[in-house]
Amino acid sequence: MNVFGNHFKVSIFGESHGPWVGITIDGCPAGIPMAADTLLPLLQRRRAGAAGTTPRAEADEPVFASGLFNGHTTGAPLTVLFANSNTRSADYDALKNMPRPGHADFVLAQKFSGFNDYRGGGHSSGRLTVALVAAGAIAMQVLKGVTITATVTEAGGSADVATAVAKAVQEQDSIGGIVTCRVLGVPAGLGDPFFHSLESTIAHLVFSIPAIKGIEFGEGFHAARMTGSTHNDAIVGADGTTATNHAGGINGGISNGNEIYFRVAVKPTSSTPQMQHTLNVATGQVEEFAVKGRHDLCIALRVPPVVEAVTAIALADHWLMSGYDLR
Amino acid sequence: MNVFGNHFKVSIFGESHGPWVGITIDGCPAGIPMAADTLLPLLQRRRAGAAGTTPRAEADEPVFASGLFNGHTTGAPLTVLFANSNTRSADYDALKNMPRPGHADFVLAQKFSGFNDYRGGGHSSGRLTVALVAAGAIAMQVLKGVTITATVTEAGGSADVATAVAKAVQEQDSIGGIVTCRVLGVPAGLGDPFFHSLESTIAHLVFSIPAIKGIEFGEGFHAARMTGSTHNDAIVGADGTTATNHAGGINGGISNGNEIYFRVAVKPTSSTPQMQHTLNVATGQVEEFAVKGRHDLCIALRVPPVVEAVTAIALADHWLMSGYDLR
Amino acid sequence: MNVFGNHFKVSIFGESHGPWVGITIDGCPAGIPMAADTLLPLLQRRRAGAAGTTPRAEADEPVFASGLFNGHTTGAPLTVLFANSNTRSADYDALKNMPRPGHADFVLAQKFSGFNDYRGGGHSSGRLTVALVAAGAIAMQVLKGVTITATVTEAGGSADVATAVAKAVQEQDSIGGIVTCRVLGVPAGLGDPFFHSLESTIAHLVFSIPAIKGIEFGEGFHAARMTGSTHNDAIVGADGTTATNHAGGINGGISNGNEIYFRVAVKPTSSTPQMQHTLNVATGQVEEFAVKGRHDLCIALRVPPVVEAVTAIALADHWLMSGYDLR
Amino acid sequence: MNVFGNHFKVSIFGESHGPWVGITIDGCPAGIPMAADTLLPLLQRRRAGAAGTTPRAEADEPVFASGLFNGHTTGAPLTVLFANSNTRSADYDALKNMPRPGHADFVLAQKFSGFNDYRGGGHSSGRLTVALVAAGAIAMQVLKGVTITATVTEAGGSADVATAVAKAVQEQDSIGGIVTCRVLGVPAGLGDPFFHSLESTIAHLVFSIPAIKGIEFGEGFHAARMTGSTHNDAIVGADGTTATNHAGGINGGISNGNEIYFRVAVKPTSSTPQMQHTLNVATGQVEEFAVKGRHDLCIALRVPPVVEAVTAIALADHWLMSGYDLR
Repeated sequence: MNVFGNHFKVSIFGESHGPWVGITIDGCPAGIPMAADTLLPLLQRRRAGAAGTTPRAEADEPVFASGLFNGHTTGAPLTVLFANSNTRSADYDALKNMPRPGHADFVLAQKFSGFNDYRGGGHSSGRLTVALVAAGAIAMQVLKGVTITATVTEAGGSADVATAVAKAVQEQDSIGGIVTCRVLGVPAGLGDPFFHSLESTIAHLVFSIPAIKGIEFGEGFHAARMTGSTHNDAIVGADGTTATNHAGGINGGISNGNEIYFRVAVKPTSSTPQMQHTLNVATGQVEEFAVKGRHDLCIALRVPPVVEAVTAIALADHWLMSGYDLR
Repeated sequence: MNVFGNHFKVSIFGESHGPWVGITIDGCPAGIPMAADTLLPLLQRRRAGAAGTTPRAEADEPVFASGLFNGHTTGAPLTVLFANSNTRSADYDALKNMPRPGHADFVLAQKFSGFNDYRGGGHSSGRLTVALVAAGAIAMQVLKGVTITATVTEAGGSADVATAVAKAVQEQDSIGGIVTCRVLGVPAGLGDPFFHSLESTIAHLVFSIPAIKGIEFGEGFHAARMTGSTHNDAIVGADGTTATNHAGGINGGISNGNEIYFRVAVKPTSSTPQMQHTLNVATGQVEEFAVKGRHDLCIALRVPPVVEAVTAIALADHWLMSGYDLR
Repeated sequence: MNVFGNHFKVSIFGESHGPWVGITIDGCPAGIPMAADTLLPLLQRRRAGAAGTTPRAEADEPVFASGLFNGHTTGAPLTVLFANSNTRSADYDALKNMPRPGHADFVLAQKFSGFNDYRGGGHSSGRLTVALVAAGAIAMQVLKGVTITATVTEAGGSADVATAVAKAVQEQDSIGGIVTCRVLGVPAGLGDPFFHSLESTIAHLVFSIPAIKGIEFGEGFHAARMTGSTHNDAIVGADGTTATNHAGGINGGISNGNEIYFRVAVKPTSSTPQMQHTLNVATGQVEEFAVKGRHDLCIALRVPPVVEAVTAIALADHWLMSGYDLR
Repeated sequence: MNVFGNHFKVSIFGESHGPWVGITIDGCPAGIPMAADTLLPLLQRRRAGAAGTTPRAEADEPVFASGLFNGHTTGAPLTVLFANSNTRSADYDALKNMPRPGHADFVLAQKFSGFNDYRGGGHSSGRLTVALVAAGAIAMQVLKGVTITATVTEAGGSADVATAVAKAVQEQDSIGGIVTCRVLGVPAGLGDPFFHSLESTIAHLVFSIPAIKGIEFGEGFHAARMTGSTHNDAIVGADGTTATNHAGGINGGISNGNEIYFRVAVKPTSSTPQMQHTLNVATGQVEEFAVKGRHDLCIALRVPPVVEAVTAIALADHWLMSGYDLR
């Protein structure tokens, strides 16, 4: 199931080392100004280059295959393609029999009886986040007056992210991090308690991003240690403004008009330069090996634009579904 | 959107103070032994009675409206109804103009232009978890060889749950908690990275349970502070067995055959006996008020069977969708 | 798959001889005036009584299990239940080994490995049209300014329907018929060429009605014998009014603002009083037998309100999906 | 909504004069031998060239963007692209203000507030049937032992198709036709009475093909003139074989193991060379005009491979959904 959404329906395709990755969006309203340029800022933020990120450099130039005419969306499906050019498949051939720990190599081979494209993780590659980001950049055009901002607020256990990354580079071991996302401008009324609470759909999509292992809204896990009288946010304005915002802008699964915020846990990428052990499925022996290929030491650094993108996708779907209630 | 699932499709309906709450399951295979008795153990675990839980007592007797014949599922939709009898709507009439903090009163009125049934939270009531539990108990019959166990592992910030609840009763303030869920017997191969990772669908449904504000799989937020070399689980068996299980049994969004585990943050229920403040929408003034009605001081105590239920629903859907790959 | 629709999502359940049949509608907007009375006129038209129709008489009293409050829809799922009281299951027990020709007895036993409820067709019974009609009556409340009118325009090959039915009663053999449906007030713009043309969704639901074997829109099969110059409808008004309406109000799968009309072929009900032959699956012999039970000689007579109902469901779904384009 | 299917999910995109048209299939099992060559025979049958068909010639070379590895499907989404090269947009620019009768020009402009790509019908073009055919050719690989054969059995009201087409060419007016489709090898048990009868889903997709205005299964409209005793198909074999097959291989919406057959009405294409009238939306006057562009005089000739394709898509979706029942 590679399709998500009810009204703003996103379909994703492609592999790390295949010819194209891309996305089709069905249900995007007509008449929205759109061009390749619309997507570039978010795509640019996702691209590699900083310390601790992979040297694989793709042009990431979005090609609109359909749905665009005279600089506007037409109401027909929008398909955006990205060519894969900078692939070095040979890096992966040696690992065919050595499923990398933490990666999906083993489970994909199980699930698809060995027919999966194992090069670079195939369809399960971080490469596909370029398509997620494109879809998110389009979704943002649907959301009038909404701003979504995600930042890395912790890396390797420290709020001093730059130092933590420098340490990771020095020690040549990958590190995890925390990404915090804040959303302003969402009107009250988006979400459904059963089964499509705002937390449900945002979490659903956030867990589609590789390396994510946790999400919490508002006080989140800390709320489990609070009392009702300290956690409750008193409603003080006719527009739903609350005196505090422990709930993170969501009550009963529905946006309440206050800032929405949530935190996301990013694990250390499994492709650490350190020596590791795994089963050689050909020999049946556990062997030591080193991951080759080009990878990120702190994948969390590249997660913010992807979190922003999937948040926009979730909100755009709710937004369009709520059309008859909201306007 | 009150429907979830692709192959095991669950539709939920009902309100806290309406005549019936219930669930329809479409896509349950034929020939599964089933009776009201099949549901009773999980329903019983959900029922009220312990210290810190609401005195509202419903019979919770499941009525199969359809889909059952000669003690087996027929392949047609299964509908299970629960009568609401023990309702005291008068408790809520006074609060019509006083949206309770932390509850969905305000957002529901916004979303549905005031037409929502506001009595006891209406459709957004914890009462509907009886329907979730029924659906989960049915889902468990689909999952051969799988055991799902959720327990309260922390309440009010303490692992000594009984003491924490006694303190809450004494202080008359609601408290939150942590529920941990462990799943054994799930074969490798369930889940899809885009957009239906196992984390995605479990989180989606867990966030449909009232009062949940966070979820983490495996090491979760703690993984954000680990390095790749310590977090990676070395594969040591041909069946995918790993030496450690920091990933919580899921790689790349797909089950890897090891134990699946995750932790859920439950906020303190908003209906604390303490005095609170909220806007009187009739007068425009922020006023002090006390929640009436019958409520739980530690709602986390009642969450485990619901978490088990929604986990079973998520897994049953993946299970049936994977039919062609898995068997 | 017993669920239909994207925005106005209908879920159906129940069996001919089970305790309840019913329908849940998810996505019905809040604030629509609604009561059991709203459904009665269409339900009444569906009920038995006329010559050539079954003597099975059910009260057909709709019970709203959820979604209704103070005489309006609440935005939560609407569930409507109908009790089955007037069932005579013994009529069917003798036929357990004798799959009735033309009925679904044989295929259901195959599909569900014999676990299907075979009494009266089980879930595949015409009894479930009571639920379709309830859903349609609700859908009609969503469609402002739309009128849907279906009539029997042919029975037993004759436009003189009364005479044809009298002849069928006299000859004690069931007959087929044609139902014509006309829809006024649908604005231009409903429908999607791929894959949800207006013809696609109406046909989809019409073929859910038992005994339907054909559908044609506008000139339909006759169009296959026309030329482009005679078939084309010249556009003569800025609102899309055409000089002729050979297309039946639909171009390229999308409503064009003119009257929508289509014709539906209803087969003679398989439960004819005439002697028939079928396989006795217990003996392996083809045997002569007579259908018992209470049935319709001209089921087409009861089809119009059901056709109106499913047409309303299809249109309501398109209507709500088109929200952002249409209003 | 440009997505169809539950388990074999097809997403279509592209326009007549855009850069690419294509299809993404989500849910295709892994391990099916597949290559561009697999699609060529059906694509070749769809291509132009015969008398009465358009001279627009596209290479129609399928490009697999994803989902293929080492000559087999991988279980990841399959995307197939077709480049549009042979476009002559200038043909259409003059008609921007002249919505062509019988085409979707007017309704698309209404639906999408004028933002639709009007060149050659945009997304509503027959050009997109190349994508349908590709999807169908893939679906056929899922259906083991099934053969689907559609043929033109009538054109311009005559069974002598060649003569009818020659006459149409001579008279320079488009003609309609009938396409008959027969399917062998479908096991009993595919389909669901509510709401996904086999007739429902086949009809749904068939009405996605441009120019289709009617469909009938088995005796279809003729059944409306038969009696129950003559229409009923006596079951004579333990495998469900019937003595006759008036039902067209489907009972109660479910395949019964006999040959499935249905007939489809194709209207004369609206782009007849004859002079026509339509509204000039710029002047408000009804004006005479002639359609330019390259078109088919008997579009029915090109419909058979498209009918086969969509039939395969419908069957593949039922096939995979029925996995747990059927095998």
